[in-house]
Amino acid sequence: MSNSPSQSGGALEGIRVIDLTRVISGPFCTQMLGDHGAEVIKVEPPGRGDIVRSQGNMVNGFSWYFAQFNRNKRSLTLDLRQEAGREILCRLLDDADVLVENFRPGVMAKMGLDDATLRERFPHLVVGRINGFGSIGPYRDRPAYDFIAQAMSGFMGVNGPPGGEPMRAAPPISDMVASQNLAFGISAALVRRARTGQGEIVETALTNGLISMMGYLAAEYFATGEVPGRTGNDHPMLYPYGLFQASDGEVAIAPSNDIMVERFLGALNMQELLEEERFADNRQRMANREPLRELLNQVISQRSVEEWIAHFNEAGVPCGRVQDLQETFEDPQVVAQQMMLQLDQGEHGQVPTTGFPVKMSEAPAALHFPVPRLGEHTASLLDDLGLDDAVQQALRDKGVI
Amino acid sequence: MSNSPSQSGGALEGIRVIDLTRVISGPFCTQMLGDHGAEVIKVEPPGRGDIVRSQGNMVNGFSWYFAQFNRNKRSLTLDLRQEAGREILCRLLDDADVLVENFRPGVMAKMGLDDATLRERFPHLVVGRINGFGSIGPYRDRPAYDFIAQAMSGFMGVNGPPGGEPMRAAPPISDMVASQNLAFGISAALVRRARTGQGEIVETALTNGLISMMGYLAAEYFATGEVPGRTGNDHPMLYPYGLFQASDGEVAIAPSNDIMVERFLGALNMQELLEEERFADNRQRMANREPLRELLNQVISQRSVEEWIAHFNEAGVPCGRVQDLQETFEDPQVVAQQMMLQLDQGEHGQVPTTGFPVKMSEAPAALHFPVPRLGEHTASLLDDLGLDDAVQQALRDKGVI
Repeated sequence: MSNSPSQSGGALEGIRVIDLTRVISGPFCTQMLGDHGAEVIKVEPPGRGDIVRSQGNMVNGFSWYFAQFNRNKRSLTLDLRQEAGREILCRLLDDADVLVENFRPGVMAKMGLDDATLRERFPHLVVGRINGFGSIGPYRDRPAYDFIAQAMSGFMGVNGPPGGEPMRAAPPISDMVASQNLAFGISAALVRRARTGQGEIVETALTNGLISMMGYLAAEYFATGEVPGRTGNDHPMLYPYGLFQASDGEVAIAPSNDIMVERFLGALNMQELLEEERFADNRQRMANREPLRELLNQVISQRSVEEWIAHFNEAGVPCGRVQDLQETFEDPQVVAQQMMLQLDQGEHGQVPTTGFPVKMSEAPAALHFPVPRLGEHTASLLDDLGLDDAVQQALRDKGVI
Repeated sequence: MSNSPSQSGGALEGIRVIDLTRVISGPFCTQMLGDHGAEVIKVEPPGRGDIVRSQGNMVNGFSWYFAQFNRNKRSLTLDLRQEAGREILCRLLDDADVLVENFRPGVMAKMGLDDATLRERFPHLVVGRINGFGSIGPYRDRPAYDFIAQAMSGFMGVNGPPGGEPMRAAPPISDMVASQNLAFGISAALVRRARTGQGEIVETALTNGLISMMGYLAAEYFATGEVPGRTGNDHPMLYPYGLFQASDGEVAIAPSNDIMVERFLGALNMQELLEEERFADNRQRMANREPLRELLNQVISQRSVEEWIAHFNEAGVPCGRVQDLQETFEDPQVVAQQMMLQLDQGEHGQVPTTGFPVKMSEAPAALHFPVPRLGEHTASLLDDLGLDDAVQQALRDKGVI
């Protein structure tokens, strides 16, 4: 399916999103909405804007980190600590479909936009919200960051080598999972709104998203009362499965059932191992994991990763290279799927970002807007509200915009 | 926000989903749709059903692993290898809003339901699809599993201790991220359908989902040409940040900027360290990470995890315990957020599963149906299609249902 840059509509065409979010979790969500055609207006504090604008690697004075999360948006500066700024926000909300925020619980209420007020004043509005722990419960006011959510959700505790320390995932996975959950929740609420005319408040929390992904590990704990430990790259219930040592690096091999295991050992000319009692079934192989691993690695270490991958794929055995990011983005499949996109950032040149993971046949995700300069669209958006140049200048003088 | 079990509608009320998926990635997606009110009909092969029904820990003859991914669905048996089975599927699709499948590319076409046919015969239908690598490109036909997607997406390569081997995340994260992306894509396509009347095909791939989450690590690689390595639990750009050793275990601490670092060191009575040149700013602290880590652990190791967490939270420093799954599910915040739900499975008793990560104020996610027995709803669904008892018996005799 194609995801070529184009000016076609996108599934969320006509949906206007007022985006108060900053850093990662909110902006990744609103970018997903914008990729699929929503009109996203990023509201930023005058002066410095989203703090990520000045973080990470800067190339030609432009943050490529910021670019990862802020394509397909327009930028409006607004000081929400000033009454005049909040008034403009409310006028924008009158005509908007969605508001997204990732403030700590309580901040919106301090601006006069608590939940009850939002629901009453903007009954049509879908309000999307990401926070650390959820807006009810004893930790609701605690500061939260991805690393803390990884630790507290049980996620970090099952990752890492047996006997080693708990290990985070390097990407800020709780932020990004929460973003995806919120993009789903907002869209589902828009489906309901198309039916009923009513908006609602949709909330996701960093911790809750990861907890919901504990899946079969949670089931194992619920069923046995034993907390799952760390098994490194080994599968807790299957063997052989994991990383094996080829002559020039690791190869990932994942036979998921007995038929696949037969194919795998057949491809190694080692199928006679299955006749030994100690390797005869999965239970035996789990109990004798180390001797089997050693036997397999003795053979696998004689050829290169590339040779094995070609060989195992021909045999229908799921396998792959452990790719670094260069290998990933140069991988012909990743290229065919357009998972690296070039943004045309004018005087900042071409800026690569990751591509669209959701492909659609009729209204595909597309590059509608490059990453906006801070406040790039302030004047045109205020023009649309009917604020003339004199009023805008006064707002500018007071630091409202 | 509440997510109490109830029989209220849900955002996707009135949306009928025909679910051909099995194992994890598809069922997790359709469960999200069902949690939010969609009517999900799980189509399973007669006899054994979804293979996960007999996998994982069985309690009273019931798989708690299967329960994790299959609440809020009804079950219909249908042999799609038989023409009569495919005919019933097509009759169901006439009245359905969404079809979801996670077969390998080509399987739907073999059933006579290639993309062009689906679009032409069911123009109103949103077709959701999850596969390993995407349906175009050189690897489209390769078998894919979570572990392989973690390896090939670049995700595994950045996880794990410096100098150690690449490390997967223990949950099948590529499956679950693809599920979330698909739940979003399907909902966005339904928003468009409400506007245009037209369905479309929505596709996500295990690899593409994880690639899209490489975020700032991808930006770092794009900007510098250097592939990010493994930094264990240390943040590649910030210090202090990570796991520290209390007297009885690790404590996760994540000060994300200079103000937070001052608070953190202040809470330790160690703020004078910031006056030393080697620790004066983040760049210096990154360069002198090991001596600073040692000094911090000397103090942190004198008190317990619980004491530090209370102390740092009072000081506004983001921190948390590295929880195992028991601690997570007993955590008062997790309880307040209802992130463990009990399913009433009749003769199988109460079965706990993870809760709803997306909370909605007006039409919340709810338990509408427990996990269905294989084929539990076959007769009533075929009744609805007008197939009388004699016809159903004939279908049963031929193994179609």
